[in-house]
Amino acid sequence: MLSDIGSRLIGAGGKRLRPALFLLSARLSGKDNYDDLVPLAAALEITHVASLIHDDVIDNSGLRRGKETANARFGNHVAVLAGDYLFASVFGLIGDKEYPREVGLKLADLVKLLTVGEIQQDSSLYKIPEDADEYYRQIERKTAEFMAVCCETGAMVEGVGPKMARQMHDFGYNLGMAFQITDDLLDITGTDASIGKPAGSDIRQGVITLPVIYALNNSSDREKLTAIVSNPEMSESELAEAITIVRESGGVDFSRKKVQEFIRQAKASIPEECDSELRKSFESLADYILRRNF
Amino acid sequence: MLSDIGSRLIGAGGKRLRPALFLLSARLSGKDNYDDLVPLAAALEITHVASLIHDDVIDNSGLRRGKETANARFGNHVAVLAGDYLFASVFGLIGDKEYPREVGLKLADLVKLLTVGEIQQDSSLYKIPEDADEYYRQIERKTAEFMAVCCETGAMVEGVGPKMARQMHDFGYNLGMAFQITDDLLDITGTDASIGKPAGSDIRQGVITLPVIYALNNSSDREKLTAIVSNPEMSESELAEAITIVRESGGVDFSRKKVQEFIRQAKASIPEECDSELRKSFESLADYILRRNF
Repeated sequence: MLSDIGSRLIGAGGKRLRPALFLLSARLSGKDNYDDLVPLAAALEITHVASLIHDDVIDNSGLRRGKETANARFGNHVAVLAGDYLFASVFGLIGDKEYPREVGLKLADLVKLLTVGEIQQDSSLYKIPEDADEYYRQIERKTAEFMAVCCETGAMVEGVGPKMARQMHDFGYNLGMAFQITDDLLDITGTDASIGKPAGSDIRQGVITLPVIYALNNSSDREKLTAIVSNPEMSESELAEAITIVRESGGVDFSRKKVQEFIRQAKASIPEECDSELRKSFESLADYILRRNF
Repeated sequence: MLSDIGSRLIGAGGKRLRPALFLLSARLSGKDNYDDLVPLAAALEITHVASLIHDDVIDNSGLRRGKETANARFGNHVAVLAGDYLFASVFGLIGDKEYPREVGLKLADLVKLLTVGEIQQDSSLYKIPEDADEYYRQIERKTAEFMAVCCETGAMVEGVGPKMARQMHDFGYNLGMAFQITDDLLDITGTDASIGKPAGSDIRQGVITLPVIYALNNSSDREKLTAIVSNPEMSESELAEAITIVRESGGVDFSRKKVQEFIRQAKASIPEECDSELRKSFESLADYILRRNF
């Protein structure tokens, strides 16, 4: 059953952005001991997958990447345990290799941060925020710190020194902020087919994202929007109305500008010592997130 | 919220048997560097608590140790995440100290084994087993291997050598088998008040334990018992009848004899090199489990 869940998750795709960030960052050292790096690259992706499985249980989601979720197919019981199994595998994978001790600590802290982020998101559902501050903190815990850890540990395991490790942390952090805002934007601008799950899911589930926060503060229909997104019992036609209000508020453009800003900061964080080929890879990754529409 | 869950769990008591086994086993070395050992002792108890929290979500339990469970109080969402947080803390605690690399691997494997055990138990609910073999494998994964790891890592971290570490593994394993059979017996012989949760919970939830398996094979009422324990819709009066059939079948005595056997094997596994005071502690622990009725 666990193999079946694993195969389905692998088969469902995903961008494997976290291991890619890790492996690219490790190249900063000029070394290329791929075999030693792969277990940790895998551990980072498995951490992501395990947290998605538990998030789907918590959000009671039926679809992820266009496929049935583990909880929908096997029930919450199995999905909880499958996530536990995968989290344990993460620490099995990194315990098996001679990585610096700090790597295990960073991963343990990361899983703690992800769970705290989920608990805090869970407690703020359908609540209208005053401004975007709490939103930024939430996507930091959910995505930006994760990508920061991928880049930082990539640099660390190859011993490039604390300054470059810190710069790579910042690269991953800014990339992650841009990535999550884009993800949240797609929920407003995308279609069911393009994003692999029902559009408007965030609003339906009470998660108030950046374009919505912008509209709540700037749209002439802000009162109507407030009434809809704070109501757990919103109808499908109200949801469609809310999406239209957000789209017409300028919230999408505002959010896209924020994405560009984080991408700019990410690029500025790439260490000067980075050779031109590797720099091009980091920049391509950043541009890919800027252009991402799936 | 996480602190609140933590305080409740600590306040609810529990025997702290796993850290006790670990700390006692570490004394085999004659050394006494308590400060270095406590984080791992705590990690073992936290592993146990985290798996109980997830088990309670899965079994939808309302009471544990006579107190409201995390899922009953805070909902399944928070309970899943609180368990994840605690599992991550385990690897944070052991990553922070200079324990042998093998310790982290053993803990990762242990968490995997616990989850596999739960999944397998979940898939065999309300199914009548042919004999007790699968039962023994289940309690091995659920309890015996856990206590074996506590004793083995206790010996390992103080470097007592592989032979004694193996003997301590066997001590913990046999103690764990005895412990779990006793636990399962209490569900048949105890009262709601004495065990801190409703008596007969195992049968009600479809978990078929050793005294029940004995009765299914030896009681003159075995057909009635089979019909009740294989029926997820059993009534409270049928449950009471099933308990009476098991009690009158000789299944309780049979199981108690098995407990004595495992305790005997546990005592026989105590290394000869063990000094008399420490040996007395190990034997007291074994006798405590033999006499345990709560």
